[in-house]
Amino acid sequence: MKALYTRRSVRKYQSKPVPVELVEEAVKAAMFAPSARNQQSWEFIIIDKPELMDEIPTFSPHAGMAKGAPVGVLICHNEDYDTAVGFFPQDLGAATQNLLLALHAQGLGAVWTGVYPREERMAGFVKMCSLPENVIPYSFTIIGWPETEPAATDRFKKERVHYNKWEGK
Amino acid sequence: MKALYTRRSVRKYQSKPVPVELVEEAVKAAMFAPSARNQQSWEFIIIDKPELMDEIPTFSPHAGMAKGAPVGVLICHNEDYDTAVGFFPQDLGAATQNLLLALHAQGLGAVWTGVYPREERMAGFVKMCSLPENVIPYSFTIIGWPETEPAATDRFKKERVHYNKWEGK
Repeated sequence: MKALYTRRSVRKYQSKPVPVELVEEAVKAAMFAPSARNQQSWEFIIIDKPELMDEIPTFSPHAGMAKGAPVGVLICHNEDYDTAVGFFPQDLGAATQNLLLALHAQGLGAVWTGVYPREERMAGFVKMCSLPENVIPYSFTIIGWPETEPAATDRFKKERVHYNKWEGK
Repeated sequence: MKALYTRRSVRKYQSKPVPVELVEEAVKAAMFAPSARNQQSWEFIIIDKPELMDEIPTFSPHAGMAKGAPVGVLICHNEDYDTAVGFFPQDLGAATQNLLLALHAQGLGAVWTGVYPREERMAGFVKMCSLPENVIPYSFTIIGWPETEPAATDRFKKERVHYNKWEGK
């Protein structure tokens, strides 16, 4: 429960490198997410070459934090495994959230940057990572050791909770 | 980490009631999910009237477990808060995953049933819960005390992990 309440987006990182094993552990945890019909259509590209990290902001305008960051994970949808058509954005949302929580649990900071359904960002990753036609880039998570501990926040909004029927906000 | 690896879909429940406070705690944790531009477009309907739970499988064919189950949570997208168009299925996927993890951490069992983008299921919830036009039903999570402890599973697939570029499966 504590991990759920204390995870925040972390956008500034120490220059200290991140052991790839920690990222692989988080990718493993992401694969334990539920998926529609248990289709598990995900693919993960761990990106740690500096020249690739630096290229990302050129096609993904809100991913400026990638420049100089040690590592990132591109989560993709593989259409070959698509047995519950239309549900992959939900499945991969759950997988990305597991990735973020597992990184946070290990003391790492991370921020989820949106890729799908923005055509320019998708095309950028397809080209950069030589993705085949059936593999759709979905989210890119930038990872590093947090420069500072992000402050706790309270996102609870009582007015968004309803009982049995909608009764206004 | 343990919670991420041990959460499984639970489809059979004890008849024992579920204190609403536990469900509210999980709904609160769901609101701590990240969202595109931090739009937090979610709304939550906690459903615990038996006649409503029993009605759900009539319009949502894969939600048969709702019949006789003590409680469920319908997560919706409120278009009034939509500042990152096209990203709500991802945001609400992360929120649903937080909900499931928080339920699991409290010893409850749950299963995520898909609603959006299936028109018949969406229309069923809109009618049953009297949702206004701007509120889109997205996922329905059925909740109860697990009848049995689900077995651990290993979903790790090494061949889905790639480094920097796609190099086949």
